Amino acid sequence: MQYSDNQILIDTHKRISPFIHKTPVLTSSQINNLVGADVYFKCENFQRMGAFKMRGATNAILKLSDKQRGSGVVTHSSGNFAQALSLAAKSLNVTAYIVMPNNAPQVKKDAVKGYEGIITECEPTLESRERESKLISQQTGATFIHPSNDIDVIHGQGTAAIELLNDYPKLDAIISPVGGGGLIAGTALAAHYFGHNCEVVGAEPFEADDAYRSLISGKIETNVTTNTIADGLRTQLGSINFPIIKRHIHNIIRVEEVEIVDAMKLIFERLKIVVEPSSAIVLAAIIREKELFKNKKVGLIISGGNVDITQLPF
Amino acid sequence: MQYSDNQILIDTHKRISPFIHKTPVLTSSQINNLVGADVYFKCENFQRMGAFKMRGATNAILKLSDKQRGSGVVTHSSGNFAQALSLAAKSLNVTAYIVMPNNAPQVKKDAVKGYEGIITECEPTLESRERESKLISQQTGATFIHPSNDIDVIHGQGTAAIELLNDYPKLDAIISPVGGGGLIAGTALAAHYFGHNCEVVGAEPFEADDAYRSLISGKIETNVTTNTIADGLRTQLGSINFPIIKRHIHNIIRVEEVEIVDAMKLIFERLKIVVEPSSAIVLAAIIREKELFKNKKVGLIISGGNVDITQLPF
Repeated sequence: MQYSDNQILIDTHKRISPFIHKTPVLTSSQINNLVGADVYFKCENFQRMGAFKMRGATNAILKLSDKQRGSGVVTHSSGNFAQALSLAAKSLNVTAYIVMPNNAPQVKKDAVKGYEGIITECEPTLESRERESKLISQQTGATFIHPSNDIDVIHGQGTAAIELLNDYPKLDAIISPVGGGGLIAGTALAAHYFGHNCEVVGAEPFEADDAYRSLISGKIETNVTTNTIADGLRTQLGSINFPIIKRHIHNIIRVEEVEIVDAMKLIFERLKIVVEPSSAIVLAAIIREKELFKNKKVGLIISGGNVDITQLPF
Repeated sequence: MQYSDNQILIDTHKRISPFIHKTPVLTSSQINNLVGADVYFKCENFQRMGAFKMRGATNAILKLSDKQRGSGVVTHSSGNFAQALSLAAKSLNVTAYIVMPNNAPQVKKDAVKGYEGIITECEPTLESRERESKLISQQTGATFIHPSNDIDVIHGQGTAAIELLNDYPKLDAIISPVGGGGLIAGTALAAHYFGHNCEVVGAEPFEADDAYRSLISGKIETNVTTNTIADGLRTQLGSINFPIIKRHIHNIIRVEEVEIVDAMKLIFERLKIVVEPSSAIVLAAIIREKELFKNKKVGLIISGGNVDITQLPF
């Protein structure tokens, strides 16, 4: 990098601000009482297309040259990044090619089509996804953008925490979900440069605890199972985000599936907002380890709200 | 009244502001596209205890003399007003007696107890509710406060529309649910004094259309059926709010049950917020009669979010 991370993050936020929502921060006195801390929910479920991924996708496209943008962008994702890249590309008049596994739910394919993403179906394996993406890139000249292991994506995701710290500069900690690692890496950079001794803590399911084990071993470990309701957190850490995580993350709290569901229900009932299981995990983490956060000011990154509301787990 | 309604509303808002939330206004470009209008959701589901009723209850208690407050307040309600009066009373160090039908759901009784309301159970008839309330009032000196047919309650409920019009002064219309009539009467007064040619439109289920028929006949009609999912709207207009409604309401749109459920689902999916059926009805109304609102700026009062999320109708 040619200039400081600090300045890069400020520039990133300025760059993407016209294309994203500044999301609200909600609080609940009942949840504060339950946890014994002051909890601030940064509501990225209210972000455009319903998740923080809009931030990173927008930044990655804006960082391309005009020539690159003219040839489009390509990614492989069955989740929120597919929608995010499609909508960000649409907003910026860029073509988005999305490689999706052929077993992806129709509702997700429809969402991508709604944002004018061009879908190519592939076999539901990582190899097939990567092969198809590469092929499209070769044929069209589209630039590949990884959903989480891309420094511009990471910086974009960090802007949620920048906004949270602008609103609440004295946070003692921020808890972020850990999936592919883009959000927590961006959050860690933001807290490092804009917080005041603000620790960043990860929340991860026991059922997909690659980051927890990677922090212990010091190298990227792979998930043994991904049998978690938090479908956004089944992905693996990457070579670009892991070094940032290793340097800046305080610790990772693992939680059980039932704790995720209970926290999700609590958020629906008390905050009156719709969140996905991958977001509810941050509340589950602070409830599980409440003695760590007693009387502290804690920000929670509510990453998204794209859940099938006809199939809620409660 | 000894001075103008205009001033009364301003004073009411000032009086209750320290005890209520100024709730946010949300928008959705997808819903705007669907409706063909600019729609502003005033989110009283984020109000304390989850509904606008907190406003009226707080105002009614604050308007009492010190001596009256010392003897407590009493109401009969199985719904949001029971919780609202309990929490408002608790905030103001006043005792609240709540008469509830003995078939009220345990979750509602627990909510009232959580706010330290003192529950007396009665038979599930209006006669029994009124008799019990009167008895408590005689025995304790508590002041009876009606959930909707009380001028101080009406003024309190009108403050949601005042805030909405402060944020968006150029609204062409505001749509409010019609239940007991307190919210829409307060909204009508607020729009009359603080709007600029802002029409107020009611939304009511076909299954509980007392207000629609009352506006036609010019006198208070009773509900023939109350077989609606919008449980907050099964109540009857009253002698204090009906004259205000008759004078200031532009019209009432009736909607089918399936339209309420579809609108509720749309709000969960697009706005990512939890609302009760009695709130979703306002979106159902604008969708049903969209040609009436084409290209207009329309405020929707989202009255509350107290719904059993394990029993959603979709």
